[in-house]
Amino acid sequence: MAVDSRQSKGRRARTTELPVTGTALLLIDVVNDLAFGGSESLISEAEPMSKRLADFKRRATRAGIPAVYVNDNFGQWRSDFRRTVAHCTSRSSPGRLVSKRLRPTSKDYFVLKPKHSGFYDTTLDTLLADLKITRVIVTGIAGNICVLFTANDAYMRGLRIYAPADCIVSNTAEDNAHALRQIQAVLKGRIDPSDQFTFARRRARR
Amino acid sequence: MAVDSRQSKGRRARTTELPVTGTALLLIDVVNDLAFGGSESLISEAEPMSKRLADFKRRATRAGIPAVYVNDNFGQWRSDFRRTVAHCTSRSSPGRLVSKRLRPTSKDYFVLKPKHSGFYDTTLDTLLADLKITRVIVTGIAGNICVLFTANDAYMRGLRIYAPADCIVSNTAEDNAHALRQIQAVLKGRIDPSDQFTFARRRARR
Amino acid sequence: MAVDSRQSKGRRARTTELPVTGTALLLIDVVNDLAFGGSESLISEAEPMSKRLADFKRRATRAGIPAVYVNDNFGQWRSDFRRTVAHCTSRSSPGRLVSKRLRPTSKDYFVLKPKHSGFYDTTLDTLLADLKITRVIVTGIAGNICVLFTANDAYMRGLRIYAPADCIVSNTAEDNAHALRQIQAVLKGRIDPSDQFTFARRRARR
Amino acid sequence: MAVDSRQSKGRRARTTELPVTGTALLLIDVVNDLAFGGSESLISEAEPMSKRLADFKRRATRAGIPAVYVNDNFGQWRSDFRRTVAHCTSRSSPGRLVSKRLRPTSKDYFVLKPKHSGFYDTTLDTLLADLKITRVIVTGIAGNICVLFTANDAYMRGLRIYAPADCIVSNTAEDNAHALRQIQAVLKGRIDPSDQFTFARRRARR
Repeated sequence: MAVDSRQSKGRRARTTELPVTGTALLLIDVVNDLAFGGSESLISEAEPMSKRLADFKRRATRAGIPAVYVNDNFGQWRSDFRRTVAHCTSRSSPGRLVSKRLRPTSKDYFVLKPKHSGFYDTTLDTLLADLKITRVIVTGIAGNICVLFTANDAYMRGLRIYAPADCIVSNTAEDNAHALRQIQAVLKGRIDPSDQFTFARRRARR
Repeated sequence: MAVDSRQSKGRRARTTELPVTGTALLLIDVVNDLAFGGSESLISEAEPMSKRLADFKRRATRAGIPAVYVNDNFGQWRSDFRRTVAHCTSRSSPGRLVSKRLRPTSKDYFVLKPKHSGFYDTTLDTLLADLKITRVIVTGIAGNICVLFTANDAYMRGLRIYAPADCIVSNTAEDNAHALRQIQAVLKGRIDPSDQFTFARRRARR
Repeated sequence: MAVDSRQSKGRRARTTELPVTGTALLLIDVVNDLAFGGSESLISEAEPMSKRLADFKRRATRAGIPAVYVNDNFGQWRSDFRRTVAHCTSRSSPGRLVSKRLRPTSKDYFVLKPKHSGFYDTTLDTLLADLKITRVIVTGIAGNICVLFTANDAYMRGLRIYAPADCIVSNTAEDNAHALRQIQAVLKGRIDPSDQFTFARRRARR
Repeated sequence: MAVDSRQSKGRRARTTELPVTGTALLLIDVVNDLAFGGSESLISEAEPMSKRLADFKRRATRAGIPAVYVNDNFGQWRSDFRRTVAHCTSRSSPGRLVSKRLRPTSKDYFVLKPKHSGFYDTTLDTLLADLKITRVIVTGIAGNICVLFTANDAYMRGLRIYAPADCIVSNTAEDNAHALRQIQAVLKGRIDPSDQFTFARRRARR
């Protein structure tokens, strides 16, 4: 297996070393206006999460892991991702802080999705095949909906799942805990906190 | 059937009246740099075609039919359609004249496709379902490749196919003729010239 | 909406009346050898469930609702459903009682699935389209895996979900409860017990 | 590339050597009642073809190449392949001779398809992935419809296409010739006659 878990001496019990080759970071619905009734509690979770995820993305992309934005098109079939980013980072957007912190760069990939799963009627399958991806790190909003649906579909495609627990938020803590438990128990995924994942440049054996 | 073909007295033998409701116009790979070895003959066909297709698109969209650009992403997973349009209409693009004439407006829809068929790993299925489309008018480049692949897939989905013969071009006249024959014989499509199609605003019976 | 929920005076608080037209009953992995380590507790739940589901199936099919077996092929790419039924009802199969009670008849439909969701790489989409289905009743094993994956995919396709709570079992009661909660909260499904569902022959307005 | 074409001295200009590992033989709609108006000419072509294909299949399966029947379900959603075989080989079936000659054995795989392409809403993708297939040999009926649609879809998935020209028949010779030309020119497939293909047991480099 490509994962290398080691017992270290100190406070950190284990780290999960992920090979750079064959791994992609999926950022799911993080460019988001979060404009729905009752979104306050989700926003209050998403804002600190977005800081951790921005750090994690920085570490991952620096190591050479491609970042793929898998993002709702908000029913805007005529607009492109640029316009979605502009809308979600605008003053009137409740999700502006989250969207700004995780704003994509010109090096990132993006896939607009019309439904909950990032694989449903999108080009994600073809993109991951092109990039020769066998492992996905799933992150984003909401853990028990779009993140879980995408993880389920990744699992059926034989991809290994990694879900940094502190880079995923849901409407309620209970929903989030259950989604993570489902990823761990059913999808055989790793749900360590983001700082437990390290990246190894050496070529993965596949 | 939603199609209404009438014998008229004058010079035009028949027209095919298409209901506006439930019909979409697909423009396949018309935003195209046509930058491949030996593209000269295709370009010489595509330029006059693009004029006819621009006219046809104007008539169709005026009647209320949505125009959907189903366009190659040219392997540019990081760019959006806007950038593809800029690239294909630039000075250095052999396809600039075609791409300029058929440049999308802000009212048009677009779907980026990674492979030949507009349905393969794209959101086209979901978009057409959202728009409640049951008939597609297929147009564009190349008739025997991306247009035919897309038409085949439309046919398997139970959509009715209309292929204005003079709004489709292929690398060779023979390839184009055979693609049209295949659309007519196998896919039960109509392949009349574009000026034989008219659009009816009254509600389609479906 | 096609669902008709009525407050009745007596002991039953509500019934959900489902139109026959447009509704299908999905029986997910109920023909199952249940031959995996630690399956005892699942079997002890599945056996009484299978009795309730057999009753429910009888009522539904009598009313005219098609029953669709959506069943694992157990990696047996060379065998057909008949052989799977024979295997799962044989003496050596821990799931024989469940499989026998729910043995398909010649009037039932079946779709062999290679993965968890009944929609993944199967003909289920085409079958449901052929039968003009807009509502699915999901039942079977295991609630938090194949039933939930299938329900998720049904939801993305715009189908209404009905999940008779007592006709679904999972490895643990907690997993089952959470799967039902997910179906109710995220997929907007009804999770009433099976005897609260009634079937109405009158044509559904759609 | 895995294909090894050699100039030989004698009468045979070239043979195409296919590695056994990673190659599958697809038999498309060869179990077929051919019961449609005007099928006589197709039958008169299909009968001698079925003899050549039976020989070719024997050689291929002996070498270790899996044979996959990709067959229409004839709208019989309730029946399995065994019943389709019984129907198509029965006395009243115009296609009985073809179907008998190509009757599947218990070692063959089968995938029931609801539409023209063997990949559309079927488990073929998953089966080929399970078998680690990167090359498909497409054979069967009709060349310009189900064989071509399946070959198109195989091509979009990155599979290499081999189409033994004398193991494919269409309604007319012209349709067949054009389908083969399309496979060769657009899908970059090999269309040599069946006796020009040989099979090599040594492991394919992929």
